[in-house]
Amino acid sequence: MGKYAFGVDIGGTTVKIGLFEANGELLNKWEIPTNKADSGECIIPDIVASLREEMEKKGISEEELCGIGVGAPGAVDEEGVLVGGAVNIGWKPFNIPEAFNAYIKVPVKAVNDANSAAFGEMWKGGGRGCSNMVAVTLGTGVGGGIIIGGSILTGATGAGGEIGHIHIEDKETEICGCKNKGCLEQYASATGIVRLAKRRLAADGEASVLREQEISAKTVFDAVKAGDKVAIEIAEQFGEYLGKGLAAVANVVNPERFVIGGGVSKAGEVLLSYVEPQFQKYAFPPCRGAKFALAELGNDAGIYGAAGLVLRK
Amino acid sequence: MGKYAFGVDIGGTTVKIGLFEANGELLNKWEIPTNKADSGECIIPDIVASLREEMEKKGISEEELCGIGVGAPGAVDEEGVLVGGAVNIGWKPFNIPEAFNAYIKVPVKAVNDANSAAFGEMWKGGGRGCSNMVAVTLGTGVGGGIIIGGSILTGATGAGGEIGHIHIEDKETEICGCKNKGCLEQYASATGIVRLAKRRLAADGEASVLREQEISAKTVFDAVKAGDKVAIEIAEQFGEYLGKGLAAVANVVNPERFVIGGGVSKAGEVLLSYVEPQFQKYAFPPCRGAKFALAELGNDAGIYGAAGLVLRK
Repeated sequence: MGKYAFGVDIGGTTVKIGLFEANGELLNKWEIPTNKADSGECIIPDIVASLREEMEKKGISEEELCGIGVGAPGAVDEEGVLVGGAVNIGWKPFNIPEAFNAYIKVPVKAVNDANSAAFGEMWKGGGRGCSNMVAVTLGTGVGGGIIIGGSILTGATGAGGEIGHIHIEDKETEICGCKNKGCLEQYASATGIVRLAKRRLAADGEASVLREQEISAKTVFDAVKAGDKVAIEIAEQFGEYLGKGLAAVANVVNPERFVIGGGVSKAGEVLLSYVEPQFQKYAFPPCRGAKFALAELGNDAGIYGAAGLVLRK
Repeated sequence: MGKYAFGVDIGGTTVKIGLFEANGELLNKWEIPTNKADSGECIIPDIVASLREEMEKKGISEEELCGIGVGAPGAVDEEGVLVGGAVNIGWKPFNIPEAFNAYIKVPVKAVNDANSAAFGEMWKGGGRGCSNMVAVTLGTGVGGGIIIGGSILTGATGAGGEIGHIHIEDKETEICGCKNKGCLEQYASATGIVRLAKRRLAADGEASVLREQEISAKTVFDAVKAGDKVAIEIAEQFGEYLGKGLAAVANVVNPERFVIGGGVSKAGEVLLSYVEPQFQKYAFPPCRGAKFALAELGNDAGIYGAAGLVLRK
């Protein structure tokens, strides 16, 4: 058994890397740019060079490594194959652990980045102590990662936990990025909240501090905290959509906890106060016991979870 | 390793029992009445007496038993605890394997009956070859059982796969058995189809063979097969609700296959032809690969799955 592991979180702009002790303590973290040239073919050698540099600095040998965990921005199957490629970094489908092993002969495990973040939150963040949980990322879109019995629910094609595209509203007229209409993401993401806000503000002329500033998830929830009546109505709508969507998720996988992260979650506990009552209303009674918590690891969730893939259990 | 196993499926009226060889072949099956007197306290001793009788007849010793698998009509957690009891047979919460072991000292595993049926369909029925699948039972209600990585998704409180209560229709005015409104079960169960049919028939006076007979899921789908235009509209509504609900399920667990069983599924392939296109429409594109199949084991799914709990892998 090695003493160290690397957690690697590959994003469209940077690759986040963490060096961890076997007990899960983060010893060092840093970023390197994601080199998207030539269909991203330099990304893996760049990462391995950076890992080797850190190993040399710290005097760590390959034998002392438990392995490398990798979160990739696309669907990844049980064998670590990026099944549909990753358009944002130019990658075609390939087996990620095998690609790493061409440069470094240590155990490598790869998963989807939302799933590695979920695994990180279970291991060291807002989901500590849970073996059945759902991590929900409210960012530009709505992402998810599901942990069942302490393991990531990968799904048949690596798309397990893609809860942002659950159909939630029959009356929607605008089209979602997935080409459907009425997806959860159209209401509960950062952009979704802005849409809800603009629609509400256009509906009548009621006074609101939101009329005097740029509308974002942050300004909406700041206005909620300040008691702005229109902003509260918007938060209620958001809460109903997200609560209803997460109730559907709970009826399927019956989790102990939802861990809410992503930029929108920076609003804090006030956000949960709009979601939980609606979740309770829509969830099947035996599934209502699920608790809500905020994510704790922020942008480090991915490197924690990736390292956890090779360190945990 | 033993040579035999029992699969026990405890229902409200009868207990179904199967004797299986270690390879999964069903050697004998029979039923005993479910004795609900005295809070159902005779049920387990009755079952064990029946198993012992069969063992004696066949000359099978306890040492030759791999164990006993049990499907129970209530939520059962990972340890085999019937967490909320089972009202229809008078059972309070208790640990099922321990209760069996008071009468017979062989390995016992217990799960919810919908989950054992799902496991049976994966092992020997319409889900053969899948390790990620969802069994959907369209009966009086809509039940479900989810298999992930070859194992039952039990959930935090044994309510994993209770997909019948996913909220699917905001405009519903009637109340579901769970006290919510607009649950999948209100449209896709046997009684749900009758509701849809009665509403459609009441909407106008259009001619239909359904006006001349008692309405049931069977008569509706028989009329569909005969080309009855009103019945086809009803089947389209049913298909849209069920397809939409299963799309939500697919967006959460990304299965390889849906296996559709229960009384309503006796309509056969025609039923799937109304569900699949709607599923394709509503599912997130990476989850659209899920195939649909009819359940194959009928009322034996539960005993197969229960035996599979102690025999498989």
